[in-house]
Amino acid sequence: MLKNYKTKDTYPEIREKAQYRVDHLIKPVGSLGKMEALYVKLCEISGDIQPDISQKSIVVFAADHGVFEEGVAATERDVTWIQAINMTKGLTGVCAFAKCAGADVRVVDLGIDADIDCEAIVHRKIRKGSSNLAKGPAMSRAEALQALQVGIDMAHAEAARGIKVLGTGEMGIGNTTPSAAILSVMTGHSVEYCTGIGANLPSAKLPLKIKVIETAIEINRPDSKDPIDVLAKLGGFDIAGMAGLILGAAQVGVPVVVDGFIATVSAVVATAIEPRAKDFIITSHHSKERGARIALEHLGLGSYLDLDLRLGEGTGAAIMFSVLDHAVAMSRYMITFDEAGFVAP
Amino acid sequence: MLKNYKTKDTYPEIREKAQYRVDHLIKPVGSLGKMEALYVKLCEISGDIQPDISQKSIVVFAADHGVFEEGVAATERDVTWIQAINMTKGLTGVCAFAKCAGADVRVVDLGIDADIDCEAIVHRKIRKGSSNLAKGPAMSRAEALQALQVGIDMAHAEAARGIKVLGTGEMGIGNTTPSAAILSVMTGHSVEYCTGIGANLPSAKLPLKIKVIETAIEINRPDSKDPIDVLAKLGGFDIAGMAGLILGAAQVGVPVVVDGFIATVSAVVATAIEPRAKDFIITSHHSKERGARIALEHLGLGSYLDLDLRLGEGTGAAIMFSVLDHAVAMSRYMITFDEAGFVAP
Repeated sequence: MLKNYKTKDTYPEIREKAQYRVDHLIKPVGSLGKMEALYVKLCEISGDIQPDISQKSIVVFAADHGVFEEGVAATERDVTWIQAINMTKGLTGVCAFAKCAGADVRVVDLGIDADIDCEAIVHRKIRKGSSNLAKGPAMSRAEALQALQVGIDMAHAEAARGIKVLGTGEMGIGNTTPSAAILSVMTGHSVEYCTGIGANLPSAKLPLKIKVIETAIEINRPDSKDPIDVLAKLGGFDIAGMAGLILGAAQVGVPVVVDGFIATVSAVVATAIEPRAKDFIITSHHSKERGARIALEHLGLGSYLDLDLRLGEGTGAAIMFSVLDHAVAMSRYMITFDEAGFVAP
Repeated sequence: MLKNYKTKDTYPEIREKAQYRVDHLIKPVGSLGKMEALYVKLCEISGDIQPDISQKSIVVFAADHGVFEEGVAATERDVTWIQAINMTKGLTGVCAFAKCAGADVRVVDLGIDADIDCEAIVHRKIRKGSSNLAKGPAMSRAEALQALQVGIDMAHAEAARGIKVLGTGEMGIGNTTPSAAILSVMTGHSVEYCTGIGANLPSAKLPLKIKVIETAIEINRPDSKDPIDVLAKLGGFDIAGMAGLILGAAQVGVPVVVDGFIATVSAVVATAIEPRAKDFIITSHHSKERGARIALEHLGLGSYLDLDLRLGEGTGAAIMFSVLDHAVAMSRYMITFDEAGFVAP
């Protein structure tokens, strides 16, 4: 399953051509900063100096988490299935932003702890929620591989129907706990350093959340050199699905916009499995959740939006889609010095 | 001229209503961070819980600067008039982003040092470029007031034709020099601290630029308690025009999105003239030009985009328009807990 990746060398001359164009647009060299780098990256991925990103989609992986029973989340567990269904109706945060950006939202049930009778959901349920990682592995290795494969398959399916940019989304009450656990093991930072309040966990409960994660790592003894082992033992179906989507995006050669904390942790896992996937990742915002910054630093990637978001769902990725539209518009509508009759700088 | 401002208390109950709505949207309270605050601000300004920001416009004030002769800019002076005309044709950076955001670009000649034969430009030329501030006042007080009035008039004219959000733009080779001079006097920070390389000035020339500004302040002795005095002696027509646009926006009651360094300095001037104008200002990005951060801190305002922009023209404001569209979409498309049948948090 982990073969056939595209690389940024798939189109050997495109980087130089894109950089030449952006350097010769009618402005001081480099003065559009990260917009220039985004444009060049979109060119490298697409092989096209005028990349087409008109068709966009956020793929939301929904799953419940056994660790919920430890009291690490402030939200009711039912919210996972209720919001998954609301997403298919266009009613949640990611839907609002996706609509604004002209993007679709696809919802995949990988492990919701409920029987879902909703045609608009992509049914790939592996199990009704992962196991409690504080008591044993959250998933078996086979389940983790299966969830990754669903993500990969979704990237292929979306690309096949013409999607040119993917975004990662998740819906899973309790999922900042497995995310912080994975982040701690993958980066070597302490659990305390990696753990935040998620969706409004009262700060008095933060020590409990940290203790639960420390216990989970102690009990499961994940091998930090084996990202699939870490993912299986400490993760969740939603995190695995997003990691798969990123790997799949790299296989089909489309950019994938990564949302906040949980999604960025899934990117840490995906790039540990396949470092070349990084060439297809576009980050979005620095989430208010502290672990997001740690994950971005680990990836060596910056961010573009400073909005103090901490909702998840893919909300930051959907807003970022509009920034990408601007990056493409820059190249499409600005003229070059040559075209303007100036001498190039 | 400086009367008849709206204030955020024009619509006394709207803030509470908007905050109630945003707190009850189907997400953890506060989890959409600055998007929530942007939405509430747009409601306060418009008096409408579903603000209409469909019609947008960037007003670009173009002018030359006498201080150019000191060698403080790396770009040819002709670029001011050439780019002003290119802007009317939709060919520059701000045009590309405005097109992407569905916004208009209006170009106002306040002081271009050329005879402009272009119908699409709004002709309000005061003089062919300000005087060299290193040798005396850049403008007379009457000229500064005249340029402010043009900006105010533009806000009224744009609002009259249905524009619901304004953005500040400028085109004036050399204009980071007067901006840094104004910033230093208005904030009390040293010239060295306030001065950057602008549009790719070789860093070897930075000491010259600092010296020119120090000389200008020494010679002109602007009264830091009198913002119009500071603006006249150290400013330029473009900076004054943007300050006027901000004051005019506050008069007609529409939000005005402020771009980067030069525009944020104009906001420092505008709010010193009329502190209530701050309620109508929406910032955009933290520019790569160091003075922009200083100006934002002085205003006590944050920013939303982290793109390392330093082009000016209004480029960051135009990208920010899209973020505002997302803030409005959030309220328009997300349902509340009540609507979803949840108990409110």
